[in-house]
Amino acid sequence: MTLKNTRAGNYPEWYQNVVAEADMAENSSSPGCMVIKPWGYGIWERIRDVFDERIKSTDHENCYFPMFIPLSFFQKEAEHVDGFAKEMAVVTHSRLSMKDGKLTPDSELDEPLIVRPTSEAIIADSFSKWVKSYRDLPVLVNQWANVVRWEMRPRLFLRTREFLWQEGHTAHSSAQEAEEETKRMLEAYRELCEETLAMPVICGRKPEHEKFPGAVDTYCVEAMMQDGKALQAGTSHFLGQNFAKSANISFVNKNNQPEFAYTTSWGVSTRLIGGVIMTHADDEGMVVPPKIAPYQVVIIPVIKNDSDEENVMSYIKGLQAELLAQKPFGEKIRIKLDKRDRKSVDKFWEWTRKGAPIILEIGPRDVAENNVMLKERIRLGTAEGKMVLNKDEFVKTVAQRLENIQKEMFEKAKARLEKNVRTDIKTQKDFQEYFSNSNSWIEDGKDGKVAFVRGKWSGDANSEELLKAMKITIRCIPFDQSGTKGECLLTGKADATIDVIYARSY
Amino acid sequence: MTLKNTRAGNYPEWYQNVVAEADMAENSSSPGCMVIKPWGYGIWERIRDVFDERIKSTDHENCYFPMFIPLSFFQKEAEHVDGFAKEMAVVTHSRLSMKDGKLTPDSELDEPLIVRPTSEAIIADSFSKWVKSYRDLPVLVNQWANVVRWEMRPRLFLRTREFLWQEGHTAHSSAQEAEEETKRMLEAYRELCEETLAMPVICGRKPEHEKFPGAVDTYCVEAMMQDGKALQAGTSHFLGQNFAKSANISFVNKNNQPEFAYTTSWGVSTRLIGGVIMTHADDEGMVVPPKIAPYQVVIIPVIKNDSDEENVMSYIKGLQAELLAQKPFGEKIRIKLDKRDRKSVDKFWEWTRKGAPIILEIGPRDVAENNVMLKERIRLGTAEGKMVLNKDEFVKTVAQRLENIQKEMFEKAKARLEKNVRTDIKTQKDFQEYFSNSNSWIEDGKDGKVAFVRGKWSGDANSEELLKAMKITIRCIPFDQSGTKGECLLTGKADATIDVIYARSY
Repeated sequence: MTLKNTRAGNYPEWYQNVVAEADMAENSSSPGCMVIKPWGYGIWERIRDVFDERIKSTDHENCYFPMFIPLSFFQKEAEHVDGFAKEMAVVTHSRLSMKDGKLTPDSELDEPLIVRPTSEAIIADSFSKWVKSYRDLPVLVNQWANVVRWEMRPRLFLRTREFLWQEGHTAHSSAQEAEEETKRMLEAYRELCEETLAMPVICGRKPEHEKFPGAVDTYCVEAMMQDGKALQAGTSHFLGQNFAKSANISFVNKNNQPEFAYTTSWGVSTRLIGGVIMTHADDEGMVVPPKIAPYQVVIIPVIKNDSDEENVMSYIKGLQAELLAQKPFGEKIRIKLDKRDRKSVDKFWEWTRKGAPIILEIGPRDVAENNVMLKERIRLGTAEGKMVLNKDEFVKTVAQRLENIQKEMFEKAKARLEKNVRTDIKTQKDFQEYFSNSNSWIEDGKDGKVAFVRGKWSGDANSEELLKAMKITIRCIPFDQSGTKGECLLTGKADATIDVIYARSY
Repeated sequence: MTLKNTRAGNYPEWYQNVVAEADMAENSSSPGCMVIKPWGYGIWERIRDVFDERIKSTDHENCYFPMFIPLSFFQKEAEHVDGFAKEMAVVTHSRLSMKDGKLTPDSELDEPLIVRPTSEAIIADSFSKWVKSYRDLPVLVNQWANVVRWEMRPRLFLRTREFLWQEGHTAHSSAQEAEEETKRMLEAYRELCEETLAMPVICGRKPEHEKFPGAVDTYCVEAMMQDGKALQAGTSHFLGQNFAKSANISFVNKNNQPEFAYTTSWGVSTRLIGGVIMTHADDEGMVVPPKIAPYQVVIIPVIKNDSDEENVMSYIKGLQAELLAQKPFGEKIRIKLDKRDRKSVDKFWEWTRKGAPIILEIGPRDVAENNVMLKERIRLGTAEGKMVLNKDEFVKTVAQRLENIQKEMFEKAKARLEKNVRTDIKTQKDFQEYFSNSNSWIEDGKDGKVAFVRGKWSGDANSEELLKAMKITIRCIPFDQSGTKGECLLTGKADATIDVIYARSY
């Protein structure tokens, strides 16, 4: 029962099939925007809850800043950029009126407003009012919000005009403290990706031409999708005094001298869900890591005769109560009893496509023998993927089972990532040949096709053009640098010292 | 240490003072929009968490729908309304470019987009795709989102151009089921207001001219502010088949016949925080009900000599650990240790202005005697408002104390509401005289000035004009109708049968 498209057959279409069949999101009548449906939004809620706790445990506080940013806030930036043009939603009117039977924008604004593409400008403006003395620092805030970037080729979760994210913004009294914050939050993203999403990442710094505009340094976590392409999963920016200078965030320091603050910003978005899909889903559909699964255990009653109903449902009720006492990952377990008026086999496939970690089917025979029929999503199609188990044995092991699934999903993805970072390419010639292949699904356990290359880079100024011509990117300069010299894979220059990750990307 | 303005002195200014001194929100550089600061947002997070659990416990699921709604979705509505004009943010361009050194909106959209003032139109469009058969019903969804209404006289929390809310939207296979849903969610709002916000409300139905456009019936919960004005705290709409017809949400019913679905919508917003302020705050500042206080217990170390620091902090650490085992309202307690480099008296006033329910001050003498200095916000200025208490005694009673505070806050507000609904006004003449007074603070324990009148209404078509002329409104037709007849207070007509609540309002 594979999806209409498989990873090997047509990877982009497979991705759309997974999202549709798992009923996670869909395109809407609002052009380029998506409707996030309960299963997709439930995953986002789990990601949000986990990361929100992490943010708060490091003394950040949540706020909410306006979505509309006056156009003039962008003027200064635009004056310093040649050919400035940004795809952003612009509000120009504040009223709709009927004119000759046609609904028409009315009451033009004195100053157009931009729907936030990100909030550095408007938040820096607030910081400038809040910060007067070193005693007011650090300011550590975060917001969960929607943002808009006018994408021309939208794709569900990966690139939509409106998306949801968190954006942290902080101000500090020293560059060192701000840099530490930037790296602390990057580490929090690594932890989120690896420990919660079971999605391994490579951590590093962006090259100059890939930095966030206005940043001194942009750090990132980069994940590998099953087609060998990179997905930027999160970024953390050290902004130095750049935003502080333009918004006038200044404070009197301990030496009683005026000084501009040092700021940071960092964010992850609903794009992470696209990353989770392309890390874990298979040709049968979605596979959700137990830590972020809206339901970790789905119970399907299998009732053929009405006379069995009472018996089966009462057995399930007892089972539910026992399961609720279990604490996978030290948390309340999330269980769904699917009582809908549908065939049980259809329900099974629906939850399989959604990627629920554990599905239980329970019919009269299971009740008679005190058993459950256990199906683990990651083992679908194998002998262990479908087994009759004693009910008490299942209850006792359910937490461990979910924890094992989480661990195995990470290990599988980690092995794939490690296998598919080529480190043996040492010359420009081999490098060009490698990337002359088109991307395709990296089959686990077989040789990878085109994925990541870790190799030398000279850091030359013309790199951006060369990369564009090859349709590849430098994902990051990983933190663990070898310190050796070698031929720059991009320019062919000798004695290049920087290790980088080259890859195609989303 | 009262605020600059008091309730008796200048009520509107007092309100602004409370918000500013509690550091809950502020106006921003984005016109008409507010920045919700950590203390204000923390209250909203608590409201959200409590109500989100309630929503989910009644089988609703969270989704997210696009913020932009194509203009054409409003065309039909506009054609049916004379002089249609709506204050809404209209996006007309999708790009900013530099032209002659000036940043300018560019790339005009084929069809303007409206920033959602509410989402019935765009959600009904999705429902029309999801619903085919009676088996697909009910659809029960909710979203937490920002919405925009172009308010001309913005006021923090009460009326801002952008605000945060939840909006529930459901579709059903029968009118009866949809009406039950509408009333179930109104009851959930009553419960939220009274049990969580300690804000008593009157429940009822809106008169025809106050209904949500497109609704068959609008139900509401109405609260009384300390100046005697009404605040609409939440609404729940039975939409009949109106939205289903215009968006074509149709299904094949059990008799195999096509039928339009019956829909509902219901919402509460950050406006609730304005209601909480005007229900509970006093001349010293904010007073937050313990159930929604971001911190329920604030601990202030009182250290005059550095040599005392270690001793005091270690005592506090022990106290914190003991407190964390306590479960007020059956939940994890929320404690803040305020270690900032500020005078302890300033910290005390800061947390008093914020309305933290319990403040503990702990100095060397308390440590020596195993005590805490306990200050309860609602008892500020009274003998019980400041007392030395044995530490173990405090730990043992903290949950009960918080629960008592919550209860007393509700009872006080409930007594005020009951005292200030006039039911003895029986003639148009007395009614007009009553409302000829201007509003002002209703002092507790003294005779109310102008607040609510519960009395007869004829339901006449010209009521809206008469109400406007008197600058009052009909808040609702309460569910508990007396069934008696009497003079219509508004029109003077005899034999009016409907009991309504008349009041000035926000």
